[in-house]
Amino acid sequence: MPYVNIRVAGRLSREQKAEISRGVTEVISRVAGKPSNTILVFIDEVERENIAQGGRLLDEPQ
Amino acid sequence: MPYVNIRVAGRLSREQKAEISRGVTEVISRVAGKPSNTILVFIDEVERENIAQGGRLLDEPQ
Amino acid sequence: MPYVNIRVAGRLSREQKAEISRGVTEVISRVAGKPSNTILVFIDEVERENIAQGGRLLDEPQ
Amino acid sequence: MPYVNIRVAGRLSREQKAEISRGVTEVISRVAGKPSNTILVFIDEVERENIAQGGRLLDEPQ
Amino acid sequence: MPYVNIRVAGRLSREQKAEISRGVTEVISRVAGKPSNTILVFIDEVERENIAQGGRLLDEPQ
Amino acid sequence: MPYVNIRVAGRLSREQKAEISRGVTEVISRVAGKPSNTILVFIDEVERENIAQGGRLLDEPQ
Repeated sequence: MPYVNIRVAGRLSREQKAEISRGVTEVISRVAGKPSNTILVFIDEVERENIAQGGRLLDEPQ
Repeated sequence: MPYVNIRVAGRLSREQKAEISRGVTEVISRVAGKPSNTILVFIDEVERENIAQGGRLLDEPQ
Repeated sequence: MPYVNIRVAGRLSREQKAEISRGVTEVISRVAGKPSNTILVFIDEVERENIAQGGRLLDEPQ
Repeated sequence: MPYVNIRVAGRLSREQKAEISRGVTEVISRVAGKPSNTILVFIDEVERENIAQGGRLLDEPQ
Repeated sequence: MPYVNIRVAGRLSREQKAEISRGVTEVISRVAGKPSNTILVFIDEVERENIAQGGRLLDEPQ
Repeated sequence: MPYVNIRVAGRLSREQKAEISRGVTEVISRVAGKPSNTILVFIDEVERENIAQGGRLLDEPQ
């Protein structure tokens, strides 16, 4: 029943999402000893205009 | 002030969202003894390509 | 694979958690047409000192 | 490393997002004593049809 | 109905939580034009052993 | 700026948390092409009494 939420700036390709899900699930299953088929991963692709670091939106020129 | 976040794969109709919100609010209000008008529900409809179970994206052929 | 997160102020008894989980799972399963055994519920019991409404912590005298 | 998630109903302009991010980062940095460049803010703009208060979707006539 | 979740490493004093909640609520209310009494803030104080940056737990010697 | 939240039932050892953080960060950094030092991981250890699957709390006898 582990639940994983990954939030990234911008878009990922379908292949990237598949590979990240596979890799993250494998790590958690192996290290925490949880059956991999119980592990849920949700990937949120967030627009750069909706994320800030240091008080500046990611799409601002640095 | 209870906050509820429901994340589902794919889309729900407006009527499904209304009925889920109503039902979930009623259960929490009645059992936890919280006034129903203070209960907030957020529903996230997530693309199947962005959810994985057992390391496989939900839109992969099983 | 629906994921539900319920955040409440203060503590619930074990029986309240069981009844809320059962009720919320039943509503979502029935209305959204998801098998109930795939529905995950996480309940977060949050101290009143860590929640604010209207800019005031919940444990402040109103 | 503080992480902030702000969920609002409807859309904000880019300028509103920039100003909210700046202000929230400043408050947390100053009060909690965290370097502002380590503070991450994610803003989720959620459709009114996907939020309920008191068991009613926000887009319902009150 | 804005919902804000702030996750910080380690503990804050009650006064820090009160001041952060007040300041964050004020910023969001003023900039987004939401009545402040509808704004909910949840603060999560997370142990440094449960947060990693760059793949290293925060309590590791750098 | 990727943000990762991992929620597991029960406790993990410090070594398990370190290894999971390292592995998950490596996967996301490599596949998504994000600098690993920008990746934040938060691990939530949740009591089994606060998680339900299929409408039953995890600490119930199956």
